[in-house]
Amino acid sequence: MSEDLGVSVKREEDFSKWYLDVVRKGNFIDQRSPIKGFDVILPWGYAIWEEIQKRFDTMLKEHDVKNAYFPMFIPEHLIKKEEEHFKGFKAETFVVTEAGGEKLDERLYVRPTSETIMYYMYSLWIRSYKDLPLKINQWNNVIRFDTKVTKPFLRGREFVWSEAHTAHATREDAVEMVNQAVGMYSEIYKMMAIEPLIIVRPQSDTFAGADFSVVFDTLLQDGKVAQGPGTHMLGQHFSKPFNIQYLDKQEKKQYVWQTSWGISTRQLGILIMHHGDDKGAILPPELSPIQVVIVPIMFKGKESVVIEKAKEAEDKIKKLGLRAYLDDRDYTAGFKFNEWELKGVPLRIEIGPRDVEGKEVTVVNRVDNSKTKIKMTDLQEITNLLNEIQGQLLNKSRKFLSENITDAKGLDQLRNLAKKGFWMRANWCGADECEKNIKSECGGAEIRGTLYKKEETPFGKCVYCNKDAKHVVYIAKAY
Amino acid sequence: MSEDLGVSVKREEDFSKWYLDVVRKGNFIDQRSPIKGFDVILPWGYAIWEEIQKRFDTMLKEHDVKNAYFPMFIPEHLIKKEEEHFKGFKAETFVVTEAGGEKLDERLYVRPTSETIMYYMYSLWIRSYKDLPLKINQWNNVIRFDTKVTKPFLRGREFVWSEAHTAHATREDAVEMVNQAVGMYSEIYKMMAIEPLIIVRPQSDTFAGADFSVVFDTLLQDGKVAQGPGTHMLGQHFSKPFNIQYLDKQEKKQYVWQTSWGISTRQLGILIMHHGDDKGAILPPELSPIQVVIVPIMFKGKESVVIEKAKEAEDKIKKLGLRAYLDDRDYTAGFKFNEWELKGVPLRIEIGPRDVEGKEVTVVNRVDNSKTKIKMTDLQEITNLLNEIQGQLLNKSRKFLSENITDAKGLDQLRNLAKKGFWMRANWCGADECEKNIKSECGGAEIRGTLYKKEETPFGKCVYCNKDAKHVVYIAKAY
Repeated sequence: MSEDLGVSVKREEDFSKWYLDVVRKGNFIDQRSPIKGFDVILPWGYAIWEEIQKRFDTMLKEHDVKNAYFPMFIPEHLIKKEEEHFKGFKAETFVVTEAGGEKLDERLYVRPTSETIMYYMYSLWIRSYKDLPLKINQWNNVIRFDTKVTKPFLRGREFVWSEAHTAHATREDAVEMVNQAVGMYSEIYKMMAIEPLIIVRPQSDTFAGADFSVVFDTLLQDGKVAQGPGTHMLGQHFSKPFNIQYLDKQEKKQYVWQTSWGISTRQLGILIMHHGDDKGAILPPELSPIQVVIVPIMFKGKESVVIEKAKEAEDKIKKLGLRAYLDDRDYTAGFKFNEWELKGVPLRIEIGPRDVEGKEVTVVNRVDNSKTKIKMTDLQEITNLLNEIQGQLLNKSRKFLSENITDAKGLDQLRNLAKKGFWMRANWCGADECEKNIKSECGGAEIRGTLYKKEETPFGKCVYCNKDAKHVVYIAKAY
Repeated sequence: MSEDLGVSVKREEDFSKWYLDVVRKGNFIDQRSPIKGFDVILPWGYAIWEEIQKRFDTMLKEHDVKNAYFPMFIPEHLIKKEEEHFKGFKAETFVVTEAGGEKLDERLYVRPTSETIMYYMYSLWIRSYKDLPLKINQWNNVIRFDTKVTKPFLRGREFVWSEAHTAHATREDAVEMVNQAVGMYSEIYKMMAIEPLIIVRPQSDTFAGADFSVVFDTLLQDGKVAQGPGTHMLGQHFSKPFNIQYLDKQEKKQYVWQTSWGISTRQLGILIMHHGDDKGAILPPELSPIQVVIVPIMFKGKESVVIEKAKEAEDKIKKLGLRAYLDDRDYTAGFKFNEWELKGVPLRIEIGPRDVEGKEVTVVNRVDNSKTKIKMTDLQEITNLLNEIQGQLLNKSRKFLSENITDAKGLDQLRNLAKKGFWMRANWCGADECEKNIKSECGGAEIRGTLYKKEETPFGKCVYCNKDAKHVVYIAKAY
């Protein structure tokens, strides 16, 4: 829809502007909606989300998590049930006060997340151990009054997501559910070809009303990190105020143990800021809506043979089960190259008269720009090429992460490292006071948490107070 | 979750109560949410919706309609652009007036439908004939202040739906899109095994801002009809106020022609009230989340051989590509029979010790309760049985429709027929006055419109004023 193509700045000149250019000109999202902070997710962006959705929904069903739908408004009286949780969100909510031309008797909060309304229903549904586990997910939209709305996808006032909420008979079952959710998200990150740090958040920044939270933090090219899906072990923080109890096999009443976890369209921002280059986005083959774009190179008098071959190639590639698109629109080849590079399609096939004569096609890799010739009879090789690109991106991501974690032994070193950004690894005594001071001394770089997969032994004293350290923590500036 | 199974009344005793029993006890929907008129769609109900979604989404993609996502709030200044359309919705909207603890400068309307916000964006995107057609769909939720909220699914304040909005270069292209949408909905109705009347609505009841609307009306067992998906030919009613123009090949500015169309969770209510019997819902195999439920009949000492065979049957049936579920929960067989009948699963397989000995299973058809024995080696016959049930339901639906359309020649006859309900066919002069009088004289039965597929020649004078008739119209009471 926009012909003003091409990214106007390089990443190192102005990363923010680069990102805005990519998402807008690549038609991922449009910020020009008539309401501030509420962006329009465009078909290209939404199609990537649909690939994530499809994969994630399949995993949900494999784990016997059922989809359902709950009301988008939460009446005020309900909110009062769980103050601890809701106070974390109250400042962020939009409130409906009128309907049908009249003032409402009770204020309705537009859901910033659905714990409150779902757990009210859970208290009606759960009676016996036979009703457990109860595992329900919603694909819906949530709305929060975020005051920083300059980064589309990453921050905005409305986002589309999946929110799963489970109830279990025992703490162990709930913890096992958290582990399973982390496993599902790990699959999504493989699909995104991103190596995240999977982190247990410190108490101070745990989700409102949770025992502990596990998050996926991705390092972006500007040195900041972005949080992706969160998985929250809610313990009995909700089951007690909401009175969600079940009769166990001994006919004794017990409160359930709960978890909640979700993944959102935020992933699209993470994806672009992590993989993109100066030409635009780079999409991993597993989630690119178009994996192979075919661009016919037209020369006068040769149009029909070129188009014929291009169609043949498209058919053959689609038969391999791949997502191919023949771009025969009325634009120049150069314009199309730019557009598909900007949009991030991992593989481009060019077919010109010379290729037709040679019974071959030219294949261009979006990641390293390498060109290969493939015979029309060997098009099955495309599948391998796409797998290679997926691996290439994941390796790059792993390398980027491992090269950008630096150990900080003292506060001076931490302060200096923080100027540059990226990950810092340091020892921490566990005191809230030290956590706060680190953040203020390091220009906003904060303790993101400890590793989820393995407990690490401190390699020195607390980076701030120099007392004995309890944890090895990862520190970064975050979006 | 509820053990209080069984429908408490027969359809003919109290159809409304029967319906409420089925949807609640069958766990399709729960009306006990803490906010009136906003129901919770339960996993079983939502899974049916997902089958509809999946099929419809595939068709959208085949027609090159792309999914996207637009903000859920519409700022007040935008609404003023298209008064004609919005006045039809204004009395129905919920209004956000506060956010982040403060009063907002501008009131935000929660979308009752998305024409306004989408077409604002269309005006930014569409520049040239190359941008057309533009075909975008959203899967989202909409909210309307409906004052009658006693019929879950059919009427409620929030529903989940698909809304497609297209823009075209010419009127012909837009009309063709309407025809294609009607074609897609016809496929969904086949899947639902329902024979609808496809009707062009009279001007008085056309969607606000449309040239004409085509709707699918389904006759329910209580003699009322329920409107399903609507397809609206919007003409240039929106492109003019929203200034959606394109440059044609002659570089002349033209307004686009538009259509909008949607299908919602309303279909679930239609489905149940159309097909159900005194035992509960009956789901057509094509959209039942479970097509075959396998219930092991346990006898002491025989449990393990029965369960083993049941698992073998489940595996074999799943390998046929069918949705099978082995119900090995800790409940009695009788309880399970009732529950799955209530939920409407089209085919039940019973396996008891005698079946194991005979190397066969007992298969029970939900529609006519007929029982068949099938050899374990012949389980592929299940596919045919399901196809038969699909056909059986569709034939029943066709018969029900054709037997319940009665021609009314004069007003007295119409009045009498209207007492009973069901479809009436009559001649109409086309005057608004007569339309209004028919409704008030016939206890609310109203002109629903004329047939979409074929123009019918009047078979007499206008049923109300006795002047020359222009149309053959279909009259019924509607939900």
